[in-house]
Amino acid sequence: SLQNIIKKTHAADLSLVFRDLSSDNRIQMLNLMKDPEQKGVLFSELEETVFLEIMEHMAVEEVVDVFENMAADDAAELLGYLDEDTADIILEKMNKEDSQEVEHLMSYGEDTAGSIMVPDFIALKEDMGARDVIEALQNEFLDVEMPFYVYVIDTYGKLVGVSSLRQLVVVHPEKPLKEFMTRDIVSVKTYTDREEVAQLVARYDYLAVPVVDDDNCLVGIVTVDDVIDIISEEATGDILKMAGVGEDYIETQTVLRGTRIRLPWLFTSFLGGLAAFFIIGNFEASLQQYAYLAAFIPVIMGMGGNIGTQSSTIVVRGIATGKIDTGDLFSVVGKELAIGVILGIVYGLFIGIVAKVRFNHEPLSLQLAFSVGLAVISSMSVAALVGSLVPMLFEKANIDPAVATGPFVTTSVDIVSVYCYFMIATILLGI
Amino acid sequence: SLQNIIKKTHAADLSLVFRDLSSDNRIQMLNLMKDPEQKGVLFSELEETVFLEIMEHMAVEEVVDVFENMAADDAAELLGYLDEDTADIILEKMNKEDSQEVEHLMSYGEDTAGSIMVPDFIALKEDMGARDVIEALQNEFLDVEMPFYVYVIDTYGKLVGVSSLRQLVVVHPEKPLKEFMTRDIVSVKTYTDREEVAQLVARYDYLAVPVVDDDNCLVGIVTVDDVIDIISEEATGDILKMAGVGEDYIETQTVLRGTRIRLPWLFTSFLGGLAAFFIIGNFEASLQQYAYLAAFIPVIMGMGGNIGTQSSTIVVRGIATGKIDTGDLFSVVGKELAIGVILGIVYGLFIGIVAKVRFNHEPLSLQLAFSVGLAVISSMSVAALVGSLVPMLFEKANIDPAVATGPFVTTSVDIVSVYCYFMIATILLGI
Ligand SMILES: [Mg+2]
Ligand SMILES: [Mg+2]
Ligand SMILES: [Mg+2]
Ligand SMILES: [Mg+2]
Ligand SMILES: [Mg+2]
Ligand SMILES: [Mg+2]
Ligand SMILES: [Mg+2]
Ligand SMILES: [Mg+2]
Ligand SMILES: [Mg+2]
Ligand SMILES: [Mg+2]
Ligand SMILES: [Mg+2]
Ligand SMILES: [Mg+2]
Ligand SMILES: [Mg+2]
Repeated sequence: SLQNIIKKTHAADLSLVFRDLSSDNRIQMLNLMKDPEQKGVLFSELEETVFLEIMEHMAVEEVVDVFENMAADDAAELLGYLDEDTADIILEKMNKEDSQEVEHLMSYGEDTAGSIMVPDFIALKEDMGARDVIEALQNEFLDVEMPFYVYVIDTYGKLVGVSSLRQLVVVHPEKPLKEFMTRDIVSVKTYTDREEVAQLVARYDYLAVPVVDDDNCLVGIVTVDDVIDIISEEATGDILKMAGVGEDYIETQTVLRGTRIRLPWLFTSFLGGLAAFFIIGNFEASLQQYAYLAAFIPVIMGMGGNIGTQSSTIVVRGIATGKIDTGDLFSVVGKELAIGVILGIVYGLFIGIVAKVRFNHEPLSLQLAFSVGLAVISSMSVAALVGSLVPMLFEKANIDPAVATGPFVTTSVDIVSVYCYFMIATILLGI
Repeated sequence: SLQNIIKKTHAADLSLVFRDLSSDNRIQMLNLMKDPEQKGVLFSELEETVFLEIMEHMAVEEVVDVFENMAADDAAELLGYLDEDTADIILEKMNKEDSQEVEHLMSYGEDTAGSIMVPDFIALKEDMGARDVIEALQNEFLDVEMPFYVYVIDTYGKLVGVSSLRQLVVVHPEKPLKEFMTRDIVSVKTYTDREEVAQLVARYDYLAVPVVDDDNCLVGIVTVDDVIDIISEEATGDILKMAGVGEDYIETQTVLRGTRIRLPWLFTSFLGGLAAFFIIGNFEASLQQYAYLAAFIPVIMGMGGNIGTQSSTIVVRGIATGKIDTGDLFSVVGKELAIGVILGIVYGLFIGIVAKVRFNHEPLSLQLAFSVGLAVISSMSVAALVGSLVPMLFEKANIDPAVATGPFVTTSVDIVSVYCYFMIATILLGI
């Protein structure tokens, strides 16, 4: 029967199907799922909007059952999507132990290690022998999410070392942990930014990293599967920010919600367009005399805009992956500027030649060609400079370089390009 | 001493320092590193250019020593950066077993599971009891990279199940693998694309995934640490492709190499600019009569360009993260178009009002305002349509949507915007 198929399917696969179902079918499928743990995994894979929608159709008892059988970090994340009252009702009905764990995680700041850690882990005393540790794994710790690492704590709960299942099955059964554990242990604080946590795990190839409080007491671990999600989500966030859509834009948005989110981001571009409008308005006299000046506006803006996007993207992504840091400011910006100047000269020449050939019959065609060529050079140089300098400075000032870069860089490059072009043309054509 | 500090530092940390050192200091640091395994980890974290540079200063014997003490997947990746002759010399001097493993990986296509898998894993027969398995781990498999999963194979080497260290320490020591192993096992083929492999590991939260050949024989595993790198690299690649820099652009490029890579990508934008130039040239008469028409070119192009970038970015990233698939074509493109039309009307109104107010004293100011407003609406609608439709169609045709989207969408939107604007203006102003 269908129920049997569902029972045997991995919840992660069900979540893929689930996404494409109609609202009614989603409820029907949930009714066919009897295992609250499977429902929990399904829930943890859902997007915010889908989760909120099905919450409206589920009885509180059913929801509580699922949340009790879910990893605390996933439960905390989902409860964060609900309004406070609904979340409180659910937490109140959950059994005390589970709800306390979840509330604890929810008390940490957004995007910190504390909010994404798992509070279930293996922690034992350093005098315990290998065989006793394995026995403890068989009894006490059957349920932990990450059974590979055995953390070693002192009597105050402070983290003093780490061992692994691999070591445990290899050493002599009587050997105490303190004799083979690794003391040189990398940990993060509860308030460490999740992106930093992810970069640490990626750098050392860990399967999990311990989270400690300010007294070095072990309070949780962040597991590698969540690190994967963080790295993917942070990349998505940066991409969307650079494209000028907010970080949290989701494809399943309704048209109205999508419009509301995107409208303000386009406002920068609108203001930039207005500025360019007034700048060009100041050169109306030039345009009346040489109408064909207008025909070069798109190519000058386009070349500047594109190299600016290149530069800012390279820098923003380089910062995010740790390949560029603020100490590299001069070398990075210098290199980008050099590339901007060289490419500006190349394309400035191309476009200058086009201008000369096309307007050869006009009296000042050489001056026109020079104006256009110089405008391309200055536009592309300024764009490469602004595109690389702005994200570097923002990073130095602790402002997210991705959010600041996209529309800001594009718009300022547009304005500068237009201004330089008409200034140069007005001078060279002697208007 | 310095040598002692280096000895005690994790190679991943050394690689961070290494990156910022001068060429000379890098060589000096390498000379202070005595452990070839540590050097191997350092090597595997280096960027291509840095690796190639230090290779020039190292003796072949030293290099061979490092490669012999390195994970086969990392060695294969690094050898891929070298020219074939140098790679062959190194492979020839390596001990046979190691070099065969590496050559085997290098024989698989780029970006496939085969090329990134680890050929060392734990594979045992299904009749083996838990205690015997643990004993095998203590002897034969002390060195494997991922000791958590125990794969179960039949007499032909075919993959039939999987168990874990956790299960092994929990079950009765005499119990054979076949009685507690999981038979429902997810595997990938040697030729599966690495991005698909990564998505699979992310979806099921695995620590590794087995790689099988066409006969279902187990030939390797892909580990979660490499999945993290793949997800980050693929995101970087997509970001760079959309920004119109090639996928492999690296920040440590020299100015000349950077220029050479970026020059052709800007050519699309150049051609687009030329097209806009000739289009506007056709409307020279209109411009001679109404010079101020030119002042609206930047805002119309800018608004179209920005919403087009929004749409294409949302779709490209949605496809990459699996949240959008080609089956959603109509709903995704429909939604984007609707958002484009709504935002077009909003900003078209704004800009129309600005035009009317600014040119109120001119005879045809109302017609001008309408022209500009309609141009914004059509530019933004077309941009949202093209920006979402193009990546969807490319994905359907199995062309990378990221590489095709960036400059292509921006440039075509620029052309269409300019054309619509002058067409509408010419008609409404009765030129
Ligand atoms: Mg629980
Ligand atoms: Mg963050
Ligand atoms: Mg790594
Ligand atoms: Mg988790
Ligand atoms: Mg998860
Ligand atoms: Mg970030
Ligand atoms: Mg643009
Ligand atoms: Mg070896
Ligand atoms: Mg690929
Ligand atoms: Mg996952
Ligand atoms: Mg590896
Ligand atoms: Mg690696
Ligand atoms: Mg891709």
